[in-house]
Amino acid sequence: MSDATKPAALPVIRIQAGRHKRAQHGHPWVYSNEVDMDKAAKALPAGSVVRVTDAGGATLGIATFNPHTLIAARFLSRDPAAVIDTGFFVRRIRRALEIRERLFDRPYYRLVHAESDGLPSLIIDRYGDVVVVQANNVAMDRRIPMILAALDEVLNPRAVVLRNDSTARSYEGLEEEVRVAKGSVDGLIPVEENGATFFADLSAGQKTGWFFDQRDNRAFIADLCRGKSTVDFYTYAGGFGVLAARRGASEVTLVDRSALSLSIAMKAAEANGVADRVTAQKGDAFNLMDQWVAEGRTFDVVIADPPAFVKSRKDLAVGSRAYRRMTKAAARLVAPGGMLLVASCSHNMEPPLFHQEVARGLGEAGRQGRILRFAGAGPDHPVHPLLPETQYLKAMVFALD
Amino acid sequence: MSDATKPAALPVIRIQAGRHKRAQHGHPWVYSNEVDMDKAAKALPAGSVVRVTDAGGATLGIATFNPHTLIAARFLSRDPAAVIDTGFFVRRIRRALEIRERLFDRPYYRLVHAESDGLPSLIIDRYGDVVVVQANNVAMDRRIPMILAALDEVLNPRAVVLRNDSTARSYEGLEEEVRVAKGSVDGLIPVEENGATFFADLSAGQKTGWFFDQRDNRAFIADLCRGKSTVDFYTYAGGFGVLAARRGASEVTLVDRSALSLSIAMKAAEANGVADRVTAQKGDAFNLMDQWVAEGRTFDVVIADPPAFVKSRKDLAVGSRAYRRMTKAAARLVAPGGMLLVASCSHNMEPPLFHQEVARGLGEAGRQGRILRFAGAGPDHPVHPLLPETQYLKAMVFALD
Repeated sequence: MSDATKPAALPVIRIQAGRHKRAQHGHPWVYSNEVDMDKAAKALPAGSVVRVTDAGGATLGIATFNPHTLIAARFLSRDPAAVIDTGFFVRRIRRALEIRERLFDRPYYRLVHAESDGLPSLIIDRYGDVVVVQANNVAMDRRIPMILAALDEVLNPRAVVLRNDSTARSYEGLEEEVRVAKGSVDGLIPVEENGATFFADLSAGQKTGWFFDQRDNRAFIADLCRGKSTVDFYTYAGGFGVLAARRGASEVTLVDRSALSLSIAMKAAEANGVADRVTAQKGDAFNLMDQWVAEGRTFDVVIADPPAFVKSRKDLAVGSRAYRRMTKAAARLVAPGGMLLVASCSHNMEPPLFHQEVARGLGEAGRQGRILRFAGAGPDHPVHPLLPETQYLKAMVFALD
Repeated sequence: MSDATKPAALPVIRIQAGRHKRAQHGHPWVYSNEVDMDKAAKALPAGSVVRVTDAGGATLGIATFNPHTLIAARFLSRDPAAVIDTGFFVRRIRRALEIRERLFDRPYYRLVHAESDGLPSLIIDRYGDVVVVQANNVAMDRRIPMILAALDEVLNPRAVVLRNDSTARSYEGLEEEVRVAKGSVDGLIPVEENGATFFADLSAGQKTGWFFDQRDNRAFIADLCRGKSTVDFYTYAGGFGVLAARRGASEVTLVDRSALSLSIAMKAAEANGVADRVTAQKGDAFNLMDQWVAEGRTFDVVIADPPAFVKSRKDLAVGSRAYRRMTKAAARLVAPGGMLLVASCSHNMEPPLFHQEVARGLGEAGRQGRILRFAGAGPDHPVHPLLPETQYLKAMVFALD
């Protein structure tokens, strides 16, 4: 591959005079308006590997480059001599694996979390001997053969699924593509998390099939459900609700609009021997909340972990209100002295705003309480020190009066 | 007591016209400049229980009042008919206990965390059958007899220690007072946390003798120490380092300036059967870090949880730099591929600023890495939904390259 060429032969992208400080201090991105975007730069194919220099020509590192996107360059390495070949991906994936193996006993986790693991725009989730790869820009998309070769060398997985159907890809002009790149995947794949068994649909499910990011939040609230009635809105594959049942909830209602999701969640309930205490309820969460509030129904623990209400900045006003309204309705379903978990995976909604909308929703519901936990994603979703804004997940747990 | 009188007979504090909204929405404080501070209000004894109304005379709740402090009123209850007697404290403490008993298997935790538990300025820590009470304003100080009676009714502790030596008390013009109010306390008291045993000096130790707030952060990093060499700066009673040894660290160095603290930490190491892998090193953390950096000494895991460097707003610039410098020195001691935990309990240092200083310190040390965890205090230190600024603790864990 051409980008395995020696660094000296790479195209050079020069940062404008006086604008190299952030990159020099380790920030992984260079914005398009910081680059000396001359004819040669503009003519580079999207996804090229380049050498980035300051205005004086000193090398800052090796990066991927796309002249058509707001984030023009994403650093792959600070080493001016780095060669971006299969060996590079092997070293990065091996290091990411080493960290996960220190964190978890079982091989189910996000293995590579993009910039934070030194592989910008690349997501790899591991489900035992099956891995799911998501390449979210042109540079990573073009290097899928290298990534697959590196995965073979580090993990030799039985099967690899490419879940290249994220919205991020459309900004890069990439096609949607979901396919099995190695081996075969038939039906649901088991997931072990928090000592329980779940199932993921790697080809058609949301994200890569499972949301590993809520692992610790699920464990936290499940331990508070012992002997308690629990409802899990937006249950998807049962990650919160089935774990709650397994840790001793007296009865659990799983809510989802998708009959398919509910069937996967109920399969998990059966696998964990708790199906007798779990009920699936198909329906829209807001409608059911309103209906149950009207009926005076309550639960000891209410969990609401919805899909992103704020998908882009322009949705912020409407989406923020949706979190407030959801919190208000959910809080009204909590029995006196009960618990409430609300979450948001909208990365455009920063933690203080989420906090504020949730607090307002509680106020509108006439409920008081205390925050027991305000947490983000688990440690297999590390955060780059200079990209605090990539902490997209927010989960708040309240003990209500 | 006079404040157990019927609410109708309580002095009234009126909020100025148009300034009652925050209180009405559940905020627990009313500032001095929001109050109609007439002669009668000014003449009220500090620590009085009052009825707070809006400008129109509608009751917003029952509060403690001090005409001489910036925060003039702190709500005890939104119920206009609330009577602040022993029964009130019994109900509040019982509710706080119920939440802790759902959270923890063993009776060692912060039982009452001030505003968040509906008891402004009151801290109660529980060490099995011994409790430590800290009354941080005049109102709570005057009600210590009621609080003791309530504790007897709810927990009937063997001993109660009053640790009334916080700096918060001096702002209220209160005297320092440390005394055993019930029973007797001889020597060190055992603490069970994260499955290990520690010891606390309830009369002379920092805070109430133990820092319960780091419980979950200790467990997180300790699990990453298996088979690894570890150093725990500012170890105090060994909460981080001894747990790391117990969870399998190959060798642990505990650093503290206080020989007494180190002896308490080593007692914990013995109680957990890990004294053979634990070394106590008396000294100043900064000096030792610099010395070991100069010697090229490294550890697989470095932990630095110092006392507050920012004690008041005016220390912010100097204190911020101290966190940066500490991070820089600590990071240089981390072996390649190792882990770093840095923490701050300075409540004047907000999380984004701490994050920034730590990131800069890493940069100055020439280290790159990823944030595995950015967490606050454990759930026995709940946060009031409208006082997000009371989330004082910050702990960041990095996997460094």
